[in-house]
Amino acid sequence: MITDSIKQEFIAIVTEKRYLDRQEELTCYAYDAFLVEAMPHAVIFPETTDEVSQILKVASSHNIPVTARGAGTSVCGAPVPILHGIVVCFSKMDKIIEVNTRDRYVIVQPGVINADVQKALQPFGFFYPPDPGSINTSTIGGNIAQNAGGPRCLKYGVTMDYILGMEAVLADGKIVQFGSRNVKDVTGYKMAALFCGSEGTLGLVTQAILKVVPLPETTKTLMVNFNDLDDTANAVSDIIGSGILPAAMELMDKFTLNAIEDSAGLGLDREAAGSLLIEIDGTAEACEKEMGRIVERLKANNAARIQEATSQAEQAQIWTARRSAYGVFARLAPNLISEDVTVPVSQVPEMIRRIVKIAKNHGLKVGVLAHAGDGNMHPMIPADKGNKEEWARVEQAFDEIFEAAADLGGTLSGEHGIGLAKVKYLPLVMNQDSINLMTRIKQAIDPQGILNPGKFV
Amino acid sequence: MITDSIKQEFIAIVTEKRYLDRQEELTCYAYDAFLVEAMPHAVIFPETTDEVSQILKVASSHNIPVTARGAGTSVCGAPVPILHGIVVCFSKMDKIIEVNTRDRYVIVQPGVINADVQKALQPFGFFYPPDPGSINTSTIGGNIAQNAGGPRCLKYGVTMDYILGMEAVLADGKIVQFGSRNVKDVTGYKMAALFCGSEGTLGLVTQAILKVVPLPETTKTLMVNFNDLDDTANAVSDIIGSGILPAAMELMDKFTLNAIEDSAGLGLDREAAGSLLIEIDGTAEACEKEMGRIVERLKANNAARIQEATSQAEQAQIWTARRSAYGVFARLAPNLISEDVTVPVSQVPEMIRRIVKIAKNHGLKVGVLAHAGDGNMHPMIPADKGNKEEWARVEQAFDEIFEAAADLGGTLSGEHGIGLAKVKYLPLVMNQDSINLMTRIKQAIDPQGILNPGKFV
Ligand SMILES: Cc1cc2nc3c(=O)[nH]c(=O)nc-3n(C[C@H](O)[C@H](O)[C@H](O)COP(=O)(O)OP(=O)(O)OC[C@H]3O[C@@H](n4cnc5c(N)ncnc54)[C@H](O)[C@@H]3O)c2cc1C
Ligand SMILES: Cc1cc2nc3c(=O)[nH]c(=O)nc-3n(C[C@H](O)[C@H](O)[C@H](O)COP(=O)(O)OP(=O)(O)OC[C@H]3O[C@@H](n4cnc5c(N)ncnc54)[C@H](O)[C@@H]3O)c2cc1C
Repeated sequence: MITDSIKQEFIAIVTEKRYLDRQEELTCYAYDAFLVEAMPHAVIFPETTDEVSQILKVASSHNIPVTARGAGTSVCGAPVPILHGIVVCFSKMDKIIEVNTRDRYVIVQPGVINADVQKALQPFGFFYPPDPGSINTSTIGGNIAQNAGGPRCLKYGVTMDYILGMEAVLADGKIVQFGSRNVKDVTGYKMAALFCGSEGTLGLVTQAILKVVPLPETTKTLMVNFNDLDDTANAVSDIIGSGILPAAMELMDKFTLNAIEDSAGLGLDREAAGSLLIEIDGTAEACEKEMGRIVERLKANNAARIQEATSQAEQAQIWTARRSAYGVFARLAPNLISEDVTVPVSQVPEMIRRIVKIAKNHGLKVGVLAHAGDGNMHPMIPADKGNKEEWARVEQAFDEIFEAAADLGGTLSGEHGIGLAKVKYLPLVMNQDSINLMTRIKQAIDPQGILNPGKFV
Repeated sequence: MITDSIKQEFIAIVTEKRYLDRQEELTCYAYDAFLVEAMPHAVIFPETTDEVSQILKVASSHNIPVTARGAGTSVCGAPVPILHGIVVCFSKMDKIIEVNTRDRYVIVQPGVINADVQKALQPFGFFYPPDPGSINTSTIGGNIAQNAGGPRCLKYGVTMDYILGMEAVLADGKIVQFGSRNVKDVTGYKMAALFCGSEGTLGLVTQAILKVVPLPETTKTLMVNFNDLDDTANAVSDIIGSGILPAAMELMDKFTLNAIEDSAGLGLDREAAGSLLIEIDGTAEACEKEMGRIVERLKANNAARIQEATSQAEQAQIWTARRSAYGVFARLAPNLISEDVTVPVSQVPEMIRRIVKIAKNHGLKVGVLAHAGDGNMHPMIPADKGNKEEWARVEQAFDEIFEAAADLGGTLSGEHGIGLAKVKYLPLVMNQDSINLMTRIKQAIDPQGILNPGKFV
């Protein structure tokens, strides 16, 4: 509990305006895009690193749980304050501090929205590659804490690959810095990498130096339909296996295509059993050549229709459709479980077959959406958590899906993280000594265990 | 000390043939390419992960220091067993376990030499990008422990960017695994990244899953001469700053060019004040276009001569010359200090001016060799450690060089690591709380402190 005197300590740091503790205000910070809710006792909005440091000093001196929050778009329960305490929300630390495209970095506060970083870079002809589906709402702090990926991470890599340096505040309020503005830096342990994907359990990120990249000269976007889902998946494995590296290669099955079409009316082919959205980028000449090789592989895998976007508007429309998938599905049932299993790309066809079969065995609908080029699949099951019998089948199905992924050399999460959602599956892909090692690190950095308690460590 | 009974415990694991403790045998494991030497009490050559685990159980039960060793090419004293104990040498764990270019990974034992990985991949049209100058001798285990870089890391990134997964043995003999065969994997803390660059202080790497990349269709290599070193450095900053990303961009100053020419007789221009070796790769068409843009920037910065290699043999010759620089310098004096400061690329011109001035002020010769495109500079000072007066000037010069780098937003090491060489400079780029945090992690993972003791943590 936060006593009145503790409350006054917090207010002395951030003023009353940036301290919320009325029930109706707190509700907004009790959930993310996963299934679990838990109310914080208070939500605090720092504006500076120093305030974050002071907040943590107060919290640690009273043993109060602290859960960081960006935009709350996590889909694994990561920002849900399961043991209550305070939520530190970074929405007021949303400045872009420096844009330096000559040295290829930007320095940002953690609360800045990913899309705003892109906007700041565009005039200079640069971009920041990590592009989660939530690009227009999720924050860089949340992206770092979840090590977020996205479609173009196939070619460009995930968040961790773009974090040059970081400032963070530890549980006891100490301010630490790792890395630098330099692309190459082997000065000590790679602490910034350790903080990537740590879900706010090691420290609160208060500033980040992000590597940025020149915008490609040309981008080409293809929509490809198949009459067979196996062919669709085989085409992916074949393109990647033959040494081609598109910027993105997204797979949608029939169920997903139809759900999008119902909602967006884009003229997608409702009869297609599977569809690929392929994007390539580079110089115009390189794109031309790569496109030729891709089309060859598509035809060899029985593509039924290959359509190239003829304008930027058409490209944007295709991507909007793809990005809308999650929202569309979410409207199909009271709850949506969007999973995130990942397998080596040659196993994508087999994994899709297994997902479809498992869902069918349990009498469930499943939509398969995948960043297929890197084997990262989002099987989505719309269901009703209130319906106990159905829900038991959903849980059983996901148990089997994770077992299948592990069996095929895959892993539990390509980008969404572990959070509350997948703790129980960890032993499928890690031995107990490896799990213990993570716990030892957590205990060393946060001995009181106040940072985002109840999560995967 | 290793008593006879402890010796028998080790021999029971690896047999007598793979246990060395005669003085004349030990000498070979007492040094690396840095300045400090220290004799181990024994050197042990495991062949399996299980043997490594048993060795560590014995070592930890007797509190014996354990220093891993690959090929001993480190230039910062990292594998020198400064507190004696045992050296675990990985030269017999040198197998390539799986080459899977369809899923774009290879699985290797730590003792495999980097060049052997390249050889195994070439027939499949793939390569492993990290290419340290020591590519023909250094091991993947050493590359991981030092987070090694190399010329083409400008475009492709360093070792950490290519480690998908890892098996390691902890100080107490426990075997842990992190990561997987999957390009995207956010299952728990990024432990594999933490082990990259940890210099054998956290655990011994016994297996690694490396990401591999298709070989580019075309490679073009340019040698460019300048009459002015400032122009040379400005050209680098200008090319990178204008959004071009060559595969490699190596800078050599006059002193370096002449040292190479003395030894290799390649017909390099002895009068050039500075020279750039630029490599670009991609499709033939993309290379053509990029080359045009680069040549434009070179001319704008007063390049005196631009010469393109006309055959693969010529390309190879240029790279051999570049790679020979270290060896050539090493022959100029009893000792060679090759440093590794890194600055944001726009600061390369200023940093070179400062290096030259500092050396001059102290009456020292300096050669500047740089992976200039990513700001990673190797100022090389040949000197005689036996000459106390001269050596004091060398140390003074390096103190000033590191201060200059920190002053320009740079860092202590781009690729060589901290080891014994640069511990004292850490406070230039990190506050004490950040240093303490690394120590806490070290203590959590290796509470007895037996793994490579005396190094940067
Ligand atoms: C429609 C939709 C599409 C999505 N698509 C993708 C996708 O393509 N790829 C992908 O990877 N994810 C995706 N996600 C998941 C989610 O958007 C990402 O995980 C995102 O990175 C979360 O950012 P956030 O700002 O919302 O963080 P939050 O959800 O608020 O928090 C996430 C985690 O980060 C921690 N955190 C937040 N800020 C900080 C900080 N400053 N310091 C320390 N810890 C902090 C929190 O404690 C929590 O553990 C999607 C989600 C939705 C709803
Ligand atoms: C001529 C020359 C050129 C060089 N060029 C470059 C360059 O361009 N880029 C660059 O980055 N470096 C360069 N180096 C430095 C050096 O080659 C690299 O640091 C290399 O990665 C060391 O590999 P190694 O096998 O020789 O390791 P070693 O020198 O034997 O060991 C290095 C460190 O790794 C640890 N280690 C070794 N194996 C393991 C294992 N299995 N598990 C845990 N820890 C282990 C050791 O304990 C030690 O701390 C160069 C060195 C020379 C001599």
